[in-house]
Amino acid sequence: MKQKEQLNSCEINAEVTKKPQEISSDGSFKRQINQFAAPFGSKQGELPIEAGRYRLIWCPACPWAHRTVIVRKILGLEKAISLGTVSPLRPRITRVDWEFSLDSGNVDPVLDIRYLSDIYQKTDPAYTGRPTVPVMVDVQTQEVVNNDYFKLTHYFETVWAPLHKENAPDLYPVELREEIDALTEKIFHDVNNGVYKCGFAQSQEAYELAYHALFARLDELEERLSSKRFLFGDYITDADVRLYTTLARFDATYFSAFNANRNLIREFPNLWGYARDLYQTPGFGETTDFESIKRHYFQSITISPDKEEVKILPKGPDELIWNTSHGREKLSKKQEKFLIR
Amino acid sequence: MKQKEQLNSCEINAEVTKKPQEISSDGSFKRQINQFAAPFGSKQGELPIEAGRYRLIWCPACPWAHRTVIVRKILGLEKAISLGTVSPLRPRITRVDWEFSLDSGNVDPVLDIRYLSDIYQKTDPAYTGRPTVPVMVDVQTQEVVNNDYFKLTHYFETVWAPLHKENAPDLYPVELREEIDALTEKIFHDVNNGVYKCGFAQSQEAYELAYHALFARLDELEERLSSKRFLFGDYITDADVRLYTTLARFDATYFSAFNANRNLIREFPNLWGYARDLYQTPGFGETTDFESIKRHYFQSITISPDKEEVKILPKGPDELIWNTSHGREKLSKKQEKFLIR
Repeated sequence: MKQKEQLNSCEINAEVTKKPQEISSDGSFKRQINQFAAPFGSKQGELPIEAGRYRLIWCPACPWAHRTVIVRKILGLEKAISLGTVSPLRPRITRVDWEFSLDSGNVDPVLDIRYLSDIYQKTDPAYTGRPTVPVMVDVQTQEVVNNDYFKLTHYFETVWAPLHKENAPDLYPVELREEIDALTEKIFHDVNNGVYKCGFAQSQEAYELAYHALFARLDELEERLSSKRFLFGDYITDADVRLYTTLARFDATYFSAFNANRNLIREFPNLWGYARDLYQTPGFGETTDFESIKRHYFQSITISPDKEEVKILPKGPDELIWNTSHGREKLSKKQEKFLIR
Repeated sequence: MKQKEQLNSCEINAEVTKKPQEISSDGSFKRQINQFAAPFGSKQGELPIEAGRYRLIWCPACPWAHRTVIVRKILGLEKAISLGTVSPLRPRITRVDWEFSLDSGNVDPVLDIRYLSDIYQKTDPAYTGRPTVPVMVDVQTQEVVNNDYFKLTHYFETVWAPLHKENAPDLYPVELREEIDALTEKIFHDVNNGVYKCGFAQSQEAYELAYHALFARLDELEERLSSKRFLFGDYITDADVRLYTTLARFDATYFSAFNANRNLIREFPNLWGYARDLYQTPGFGETTDFESIKRHYFQSITISPDKEEVKILPKGPDELIWNTSHGREKLSKKQEKFLIR
């Protein structure tokens, strides 16, 4: 992955519209750069792979964090890496932050912090970026060690292999990595981050560029998925996880809240069948929390701490349609219900 | 029509969220009452039917005004009643108003006014409501004579008959009026005004009540239109005009901007075929201005005169789909392209 890809993670607050540091002079949205990117591994200087040593913090609303939680589940890393959850509702304070307000006493039971910024500040008092999820925290030192949402799933899939469950699938097969990386880079720019470029654009031109790139890429993926059950054929890979977390949020949020409104995902027959196929696969649907997703995008993302506003939670769409039959089994050689190699 | 139906017309500005007079204590939206409701007719005290005497003011964004312009066109009243057009973009002033900013010099060439409120104030200096479209202005006296959007199309269809074009259709047949009134009352509450009740609700409960009523009514209309080409069979009536102006705006605006997001209209096979059938009928599509509609709902409705904000105009949906084949001809006895009796 190129250096320009080392961007930072979830979740921009629309406060960004008032804070120009992530808006370019042409009105386009540029995601902040990651600062905690030390690699996991067994070599000198790398973060050691150890069961019980790290805590992964996520927010169910956040597509970047959602990736890591799906992969953790599919690979059976739940016992090795504990999970802390911040609320999808931003705290009503003047800085952009995440709060452990779903936990008893509004405090994470392992890290003993209320705000995610607490641990970023403790790790680096000079840190001025947004505190972001996903983030891996070293439970021993109580410090942030990695918030590199782009690479975290790759670490889980590769160097964390000694701690995988028995017969865990290979989501990032060596022989496909080059192709997976090439495709996920396109998906990142045009789809994963593309919806944010639509939603946070501060000029009509920047918005329209992002809109066209997004739907051109979705049209291309729709075509690709007409003959392949998953992006790389019969088995789920890391690329599918990355595409899924954006597709799962699209109709409920990005279409409306980010002006990504040429089509709903459920209007693309292949993408919609594919998204449901994944949703119905263990690890995906059970970690997809539509209520949190909608709460974040509609009730929190534009909150101003100095203004009391009624924020309506949109009722639609009906979540039950995610469980409808998708008919995608016919596209794979093995007619199995779930295809994780 | 009952007195409670004498509500006022287009277009609420989201300023309403700051002005509690149109929000009930339960957070639901209650449209202001009409004040200029003198009837047209030939009896003593009624507004006389005269070619050239009145000017109809509309905004292409406004569904209530759009009704009158469709009916005026279908009945051939264009020469009898002139038409003035206010901009879909609210003026950047502290009061809620409409501006003739599409006209040369920002002034209506017949009425010689810049703001619609000018003529409301001239007519009644004590008027404190929003100046609304549609409104009929007497060109001789330069005064507002009728802004009763609920009844205006009925006047055009009945007492204005002497000025209809030759062979004008009957949009409000005597034998169907009771049924049309009963259905349009339901459509008014649940659909036409229902989308506003969704969009302007100031409590989750009021919003959800409106959302359920809206989609329950759309489901019922979807069923009704499975066997009927139009709401009352083979021919277009006033009821179809009323339903059309909401359907035409739905996917582009209400779904996203008003949280009416269970389904798009184009996801209802019958309603979507029906909406396109009407769109492709003279009088409908040619008066439907999607750009104005989107400009109003996305760039103007929440404008604060004291705040400079970038307002993105959403690109979608693709307007060209309105011209696709709808296959509804098979539902009518006569397989004609346009069915206006």
